[in-house]
Amino acid sequence: MTAADATPAPRAGRRRGRRPGGADTRDALLAAARAEFAERGFDGATVRVIAERAGVDPAMVNHWFGGKEALFMAALDLPIDPSTLVAEVVPGDPDRLGERVVGRFLLIWDHTGGGRRLAALVRSVASHETAAAMMRQMIIRILVRRVVASVAPDRLELRATLVGSQLIGLGMVRYVLRLEPLASAEHAAIVAAMGPTVQRYLTGPLDGDGR
Amino acid sequence: MTAADATPAPRAGRRRGRRPGGADTRDALLAAARAEFAERGFDGATVRVIAERAGVDPAMVNHWFGGKEALFMAALDLPIDPSTLVAEVVPGDPDRLGERVVGRFLLIWDHTGGGRRLAALVRSVASHETAAAMMRQMIIRILVRRVVASVAPDRLELRATLVGSQLIGLGMVRYVLRLEPLASAEHAAIVAAMGPTVQRYLTGPLDGDGR
Repeated sequence: MTAADATPAPRAGRRRGRRPGGADTRDALLAAARAEFAERGFDGATVRVIAERAGVDPAMVNHWFGGKEALFMAALDLPIDPSTLVAEVVPGDPDRLGERVVGRFLLIWDHTGGGRRLAALVRSVASHETAAAMMRQMIIRILVRRVVASVAPDRLELRATLVGSQLIGLGMVRYVLRLEPLASAEHAAIVAAMGPTVQRYLTGPLDGDGR
Repeated sequence: MTAADATPAPRAGRRRGRRPGGADTRDALLAAARAEFAERGFDGATVRVIAERAGVDPAMVNHWFGGKEALFMAALDLPIDPSTLVAEVVPGDPDRLGERVVGRFLLIWDHTGGGRRLAALVRSVASHETAAAMMRQMIIRILVRRVVASVAPDRLELRATLVGSQLIGLGMVRYVLRLEPLASAEHAAIVAAMGPTVQRYLTGPLDGDGR
């Protein structure tokens, strides 16, 4: 279910203008958030300015989303919130983090309508600089600062973009192109094949001597 | 330069109807080819039926494209023809094929207006089943049957889709998302980091024991 599906029916009452706590407030916040995050990045954007841009009270961000990070994820329309993701993949054997990352990626997309939703995200990223900028922010924020930083010895940004490239490619081939046998392969087989790749990107040598 | 850029000006003369050898013949062939390849696959589609569908003489396929495979690549709007690609990456040390594949991928896209062109291809694949089917055909035809088959011991299709996932992901991150440092990294650095991945997908164990 997307965040949008969860929008309650607008409250009865005032028929004209923006309802301060209603669903159009939520939509206005999402639109303002997309613009602010794309222009200023996650760290530069503030709840206060986003609310101002949407013409609503900053308390509405907490009311509708629970905070800036959840607002960011809702604006990107990703199927999981980052705190949950990080809490689920980071703990455990650091030498198997690659496997956990691949396994979690598959679980998330297989269980949230993978194909159509990812295809929509990909179209959006390939069509709009705003969406591309949002996705860059997300990868830096989640992959670099939390997942990669939990195990990597150096070159965090390069490692994160390498991991990102393998995950995005997996998503494209499995859910968008639906290329067999990867499209129907069991999670365990994909984790076995790609886990070592992601693990090397996370903690291995990147200079070609690691073969 | 795309094949479309090379279209000569339409010949003077008959102003009504389709000119048998003109640029609209070429466009009609491309449209018919996209439909046929998507419906029947590369092997099932024939030059005769494509020409029939386009309402032109089959000789026009050779006239405009030089053959069925070149017509296929033109229909997919890829920046290189497959025979050239295979001739350039396959010969050489089989243990470094992964590096050559990554290096060639970067060369091709960096030198053919990478970003915009790949973004258009990605939008198309994520939006139209025809484009997705064409891309599946291309990966099977080029990656599986020629590149992977030249070195792989087994599981050709799985290996090809794994290689494809890493290349597509590289293209997405470098050219579409433009995520740094991968977006500006030197070819040699990317080849060093991803070459071993592609090599393992081509010839290594895929059951997770290869770490």
